Amino acid sequence: MTYRAPVESILFLLRSVLDYREVSATERFRDASDDACAAILGEAAKLSETELAPLNRTGDRQPPELENGVVRCPPGFLEAYRAIADGGWVGISAAPDYGGMGLPVTLQMAVGEMMSSACLALALNPLMTQGQIGALERHGDEPQRRLYLPHLISGAWTGTMNLTEPQAGSDVGALRCRAEPNEDGSHAITGQKSFISWGDHDLAENICHLVLARLPGSPAGTRGISMFIVPKFLPDPNGRPGVRNALGPVSLEKKLGMHGSPTAAMHFDGATGWLVGEPGRGLAAMFTMMNHARLGVAAQGVGVAESATQAATAYALERVQGRSGIEGGSGTILDHADVRRMILQMMTLTRAARAICLDTAISLDMAEATGAESWAARAAFLTPVAKGFCTDAGSEVADLGIQVHGGAGYIEETGVAQYWRDVRVTRIYEGTNGIQAGDLVGRKLDDGGRAARSLLNEVAGTVAVARKMSSGTDAGGLERSARALETAMRAVAVATSRLAAQVHGSHRGAGAAAYLRSVALTLGGHYLLKGALSDLASATDRRLAESFCARLLPEAAMLAEVAGSGSRDLYALSPAELAGEVGI
Amino acid sequence: MTYRAPVESILFLLRSVLDYREVSATERFRDASDDACAAILGEAAKLSETELAPLNRTGDRQPPELENGVVRCPPGFLEAYRAIADGGWVGISAAPDYGGMGLPVTLQMAVGEMMSSACLALALNPLMTQGQIGALERHGDEPQRRLYLPHLISGAWTGTMNLTEPQAGSDVGALRCRAEPNEDGSHAITGQKSFISWGDHDLAENICHLVLARLPGSPAGTRGISMFIVPKFLPDPNGRPGVRNALGPVSLEKKLGMHGSPTAAMHFDGATGWLVGEPGRGLAAMFTMMNHARLGVAAQGVGVAESATQAATAYALERVQGRSGIEGGSGTILDHADVRRMILQMMTLTRAARAICLDTAISLDMAEATGAESWAARAAFLTPVAKGFCTDAGSEVADLGIQVHGGAGYIEETGVAQYWRDVRVTRIYEGTNGIQAGDLVGRKLDDGGRAARSLLNEVAGTVAVARKMSSGTDAGGLERSARALETAMRAVAVATSRLAAQVHGSHRGAGAAAYLRSVALTLGGHYLLKGALSDLASATDRRLAESFCARLLPEAAMLAEVAGSGSRDLYALSPAELAGEVGI
Repeated sequence: MTYRAPVESILFLLRSVLDYREVSATERFRDASDDACAAILGEAAKLSETELAPLNRTGDRQPPELENGVVRCPPGFLEAYRAIADGGWVGISAAPDYGGMGLPVTLQMAVGEMMSSACLALALNPLMTQGQIGALERHGDEPQRRLYLPHLISGAWTGTMNLTEPQAGSDVGALRCRAEPNEDGSHAITGQKSFISWGDHDLAENICHLVLARLPGSPAGTRGISMFIVPKFLPDPNGRPGVRNALGPVSLEKKLGMHGSPTAAMHFDGATGWLVGEPGRGLAAMFTMMNHARLGVAAQGVGVAESATQAATAYALERVQGRSGIEGGSGTILDHADVRRMILQMMTLTRAARAICLDTAISLDMAEATGAESWAARAAFLTPVAKGFCTDAGSEVADLGIQVHGGAGYIEETGVAQYWRDVRVTRIYEGTNGIQAGDLVGRKLDDGGRAARSLLNEVAGTVAVARKMSSGTDAGGLERSARALETAMRAVAVATSRLAAQVHGSHRGAGAAAYLRSVALTLGGHYLLKGALSDLASATDRRLAESFCARLLPEAAMLAEVAGSGSRDLYALSPAELAGEVGI
Repeated sequence: MTYRAPVESILFLLRSVLDYREVSATERFRDASDDACAAILGEAAKLSETELAPLNRTGDRQPPELENGVVRCPPGFLEAYRAIADGGWVGISAAPDYGGMGLPVTLQMAVGEMMSSACLALALNPLMTQGQIGALERHGDEPQRRLYLPHLISGAWTGTMNLTEPQAGSDVGALRCRAEPNEDGSHAITGQKSFISWGDHDLAENICHLVLARLPGSPAGTRGISMFIVPKFLPDPNGRPGVRNALGPVSLEKKLGMHGSPTAAMHFDGATGWLVGEPGRGLAAMFTMMNHARLGVAAQGVGVAESATQAATAYALERVQGRSGIEGGSGTILDHADVRRMILQMMTLTRAARAICLDTAISLDMAEATGAESWAARAAFLTPVAKGFCTDAGSEVADLGIQVHGGAGYIEETGVAQYWRDVRVTRIYEGTNGIQAGDLVGRKLDDGGRAARSLLNEVAGTVAVARKMSSGTDAGGLERSARALETAMRAVAVATSRLAAQVHGSHRGAGAAAYLRSVALTLGGHYLLKGALSDLASATDRRLAESFCARLLPEAAMLAEVAGSGSRDLYALSPAELAGEVGI
């Protein structure tokens, strides 16, 4: 299972399908030209293929261990982390004033995908730091930025997010961790945090925790929450790691996957921390970090989907089993119709997910570069779609990858089961996919469906072009695909109107998951077809688009119909009746 | 996570939804009255809840180990296995002449579901033995039956199936294991077998391997394969385990799940074995065993779905997180619309899968009791549907179970990740679900679609009854459900005709997976609605049926449409072009 970074596929998307040239045409991102992109992605590809990929199994088999209060990482992780840091990859999109490269988030996501393909567990570490960099850039004061950002950007220090407590997961407002003012303006942070990714490790000289906690006398709920930066070692007057702070890992979780990534329960025993941003505005500040991380998690889903697709295709091309009688076949299991179906599904889902992830990033970059409200609204709408769909696709593709391998897929040695275990968490962390879907039909439809309709207009453009190009040519497949895309688009438009007209809460929520997937599948068809139209001579682009439109896109219209149907059935049974169904 | 065996749900299906009373009305199964069923299921429930369920985590955490050529089982497995054997559960449907209970396969499947819910890894052991009992009953000669059956039926000895070799998985015809005649009429078996479930262990005094091998001079492919019984200890003149045979486990696989079940690579070094059935007819004989085991695997899928549903519902009823604002809610996450959606999906998929599994068993029992061709054809059509759908549902429900648990679901300690890992193999073993789908659209549609249409007629009956009962009552939901079921039924009928009209092979194969699921979802709607109609006063039956028809059934028509669309898109790209997509 040699990972091959899909640089050409990514460049094709940026050049021929998405509006990346608009990004590089802005003053803000003028350095990120097409040539520069190719060079940067080539470097990231090399790093991912040669330094990170060989560690994926190591991390799974020799998980980090907590010894005497310190987490020891798997062999090889230190060298690989140094390679990431020294390459400047942690600060790829960070502000140049503090040592960052200032490149578009789009490139960061493309690089994140590759690193996630190669070693998801380790790739999560810089993703956390990048989120912290973003939060400090936006909410830290200048002394904080000067003190922390250069070290975080260089990768000498790493960052974590400390939101979750045992009683406060998705419901962050229920947290209890408290912050008492010290005389010197700092605060003493006390409490327990759980599920802290890379909460402790031995890869960096310091670890900075962004911790949500309550100031004395603050109101209950989310408005009483403030954000603090709490380093493992307190910076000395020279900004070097000094005295050990009163915090540390209590234990590491034994997880289904992501064994290489230490997930810690953390204790803070009056640890010294500093308020970041305004009191009571911690949750909003943390959401800066999370929103960024959400798209990064989408890229993780794409990355695992790509790896699983590569492994399954390679296996299907070499495994001889049974005879299909297909002419011009490979003589391997790839000739069997159902194996082909699975491989094409993996390839097309991966393509669709990648396009959605990168297009979301482009909107973020354009919003940043132009300040235009429309780009920001587009990014806001697409972010939960990307997080939800790309991580679901990661699971789905990895699941198909096991199935292509048959019995061998169930043996851990083969390695494809690890993809499936690892990627499972991406549908849970940084806001479960249910939360993403709720955000999409909730806040993101509060504009009456404007952002959604604007995206559907883009889809309509693709339908029109496909119609035009298919007329008079031997392109029945193109015409069929355009029809399928139009059907999906119309159904999503209807669902958008129905959902936007419903009151918030349970009604919209009942259709949330179905709506998210129907939107994503429709966009997937749009991107794949757009790719095919960009060069009708490319058989691969064209045939994959046609296969996606024929086999996967029909689900979009079906789900859009379900999405608009309300919540009556979900609440028709009482909790007691549901309990009765399972004998409680 | 206390498992509660769903005895009432099973009895409800047998009494009010399925034609079980036809089974107990036959001479052959006259002892299996409704009362007897209730008593038998009650006993199996007790065994599963108290003896088996506590071992599920043990098996996962302390897998069997191969020590000095012998496999040592996890603590507690011996006692639990003895309880299964001593209760007569291994021979529940075996011939009374050799000590079996002679009960319907329907009951065996219901019991199998419960044991699989409780401890899938251990439940796999008797399932293998039951398959061997069936194969010997049908293909063994009288001395073989007398020698082996009583010990297998009592559980003193266990059975295995030895088909797979490293180069011959799904393609059994490629196997190389050979059988040389000895002078005394026995054969010397030599070769390697892989992925042998319960291939060795310390739970029974003997282990009988049914081994597929080639006699000298036999033709290549499947016609050259014969079946042999090869015991670990050669029976002495008194039929007691005597001399150790020249066979044993080489190694145990490290698997994604099912850790409690030892999966061995086996070596046979001139081991003594005896031909079972005719030379060259081994594959047909083994299929007796496999066909039986396939339905047993379907029951495994149902079992895990039930356990996962119970665990998730219990969690959703107790976990407080966020406020939904729902009146009359539980005050827990069950109030959130998306959590409700997941819980209802789990419940309805589990109900649908259980009904399909038990209805298949009823057809088998009726075919056995009456010898009627129509029952046999019904069973033959339903078997791959049950195996494919019930195990897919097992995975799907277990996956939703993790999602309901959020971050806690990703921690192994919670236990729900184990369901997801364990059940994954049921989609692979005893013929991958792709093989099941291929069988369905291949052999099982070779009757021109007669068996399928006969089932669809049953569905039409339910539609008609629902229509009748909904008219004039306050039952809009019933009318909507009937309409949804009719839409699905019509779409499946069209797909059936289209597939049956296509030549074999890749065309039908291209729609196989979609067709199988569309048939299963349609049947699921039929059973759930029939259950609701049997007692309109039961809110749970009615509301669950309506929810299934509104949310899950629409997929059936969509997939039926895809199923009939042929294989053109799948073969539009050459192997080289597909390789190019992943950079090979």
